[in-house]
Amino acid sequence: MLESVEARMEAFIADLDNREIMDLFRRLPAGKRLRAKLVLKIAGEREEAVKLAAVIEMIHAASLLHDDVIDDAQTRRGVASMNATEGSKQAIMMGDILYSKGFEELTGFERRIAAAVAGAVTQLSIGELMDVRLGERFNPDKEAYMKMVYQKTAALIEATAASAAMLAGKEAEVYATYGRNLGIAFQIIDDILDITQSAEKLGKPAMHDLEEGKTTLPYIYLYEALGERERQKLISLHGKPLDESARAWIKEKMVASGALQRAYLEAKALGEEAVALMRKAGEPALAEIVTAMIEREF
Amino acid sequence: MLESVEARMEAFIADLDNREIMDLFRRLPAGKRLRAKLVLKIAGEREEAVKLAAVIEMIHAASLLHDDVIDDAQTRRGVASMNATEGSKQAIMMGDILYSKGFEELTGFERRIAAAVAGAVTQLSIGELMDVRLGERFNPDKEAYMKMVYQKTAALIEATAASAAMLAGKEAEVYATYGRNLGIAFQIIDDILDITQSAEKLGKPAMHDLEEGKTTLPYIYLYEALGERERQKLISLHGKPLDESARAWIKEKMVASGALQRAYLEAKALGEEAVALMRKAGEPALAEIVTAMIEREF
Repeated sequence: MLESVEARMEAFIADLDNREIMDLFRRLPAGKRLRAKLVLKIAGEREEAVKLAAVIEMIHAASLLHDDVIDDAQTRRGVASMNATEGSKQAIMMGDILYSKGFEELTGFERRIAAAVAGAVTQLSIGELMDVRLGERFNPDKEAYMKMVYQKTAALIEATAASAAMLAGKEAEVYATYGRNLGIAFQIIDDILDITQSAEKLGKPAMHDLEEGKTTLPYIYLYEALGERERQKLISLHGKPLDESARAWIKEKMVASGALQRAYLEAKALGEEAVALMRKAGEPALAEIVTAMIEREF
Repeated sequence: MLESVEARMEAFIADLDNREIMDLFRRLPAGKRLRAKLVLKIAGEREEAVKLAAVIEMIHAASLLHDDVIDDAQTRRGVASMNATEGSKQAIMMGDILYSKGFEELTGFERRIAAAVAGAVTQLSIGELMDVRLGERFNPDKEAYMKMVYQKTAALIEATAASAAMLAGKEAEVYATYGRNLGIAFQIIDDILDITQSAEKLGKPAMHDLEEGKTTLPYIYLYEALGERERQKLISLHGKPLDESARAWIKEKMVASGALQRAYLEAKALGEEAVALMRKAGEPALAEIVTAMIEREF
């Protein structure tokens, strides 16, 4: 059912009448298309839903292109990132093109839909800045981290679910809460997998978050659980390449302290709230997306 | 009369509730605010016009931030560019924030206004890519250059004038033509001044266009006027720092061949068409903007 969304994105890019842009677009990895799936499951496969899904996926792809430039990320979804293969400037320009075409098409929707999605992109762009700022030193502040995760990841998923509900005449607020919980839980699970999974499964280096300076929720909980000396050791590992003994120490402490488990239970609680909302709304397929996400291994 | 637009932009940024973003925003040079002036002159100083002007200036500022990253520009409007002082990543993120907040506010306008402005931003972002591509070698193709100038510079001025006319209940098509002509003429005059003016007046290095690889209209006309040997000399000067003898040679040839004059007359003809449209529409202030722009020295 996602083929129609892929075709719509290609049609949007074809509007731009530029072969280079089409070639670059076709080389972007598609990813899970979580946002497109949400739109179609909430609003059905009507033409307007396919279009909304394509717009949101284009905006999401644009944000990833800029994100990878800002993070100097060399891989994305297991393949080399556009900034790695084509250079940062190309990735910036391609991101701007996808953003602007996405916004242009967004103006064709009713105002509250356009406003919801556009507002989320503002949050996303502020979240990117906060992510960089928080990464400059070891951040033990859970509240600051959770706000950034909301802005950078959950706001667009929240707006995706809410705008799809608006399209379908469903209650936007319920779906917004569902999307917000799904988005935050999704990010926490990502944070956990970064620590527990192999580079091969992740499609990017393992424990890369800490190396990059990102003090994710498990690290914040680990910090809270450690004594002063071990806290200093953890802080000393922040923001630089990890050797094998450091990796082993982190993994052991993450398990022994219960930090990983605590983060997992937090994601699970958010997920269960979302599941309950969707069961109540008679949306088993949307409940199932959350369950599968919480239980995923990569 | 621009104070109200500046205040509106500050209020939009204040909405984001982030001190760092406000500080960065306040350090951006304001420039001429040509687009804001056009909106207010066309639509009057009503609240909606001030808001539209602020949105368009935010979008324009965003495009300049990314433009300077992509061109590695060290100065903008006579002061150090944000990428020079704060780094490219900061300029990319700040551009994304201004773009997204601008788009978010744009969704508050009637659909055809939002669509006109958003469509222009798509053109702008494609124009940026074309500008980079054309700069990779000496480009003697006038048509390709003019299309890029339309996309990168004139499309947003065209949409500014057209959307302001829509707001005021005036005939959008007439104002669109005015804005398009003004935008193209504006760029050609900029191209000429890059060759004729001092670095001090320009607020950036003189003859920087050719050094950067930008074969602007005067260079295309010079190429057309030269014989084969001198064409090869001109091409050999493309895309690298110019010494004094090269600068003197270009300036002399630009005058002697009539290339500068030909580019100037082309800008003037476009300007006169715009002036005639505005005289007919009973808009002397808009006609005057064109005349002053054509006659400006920097």
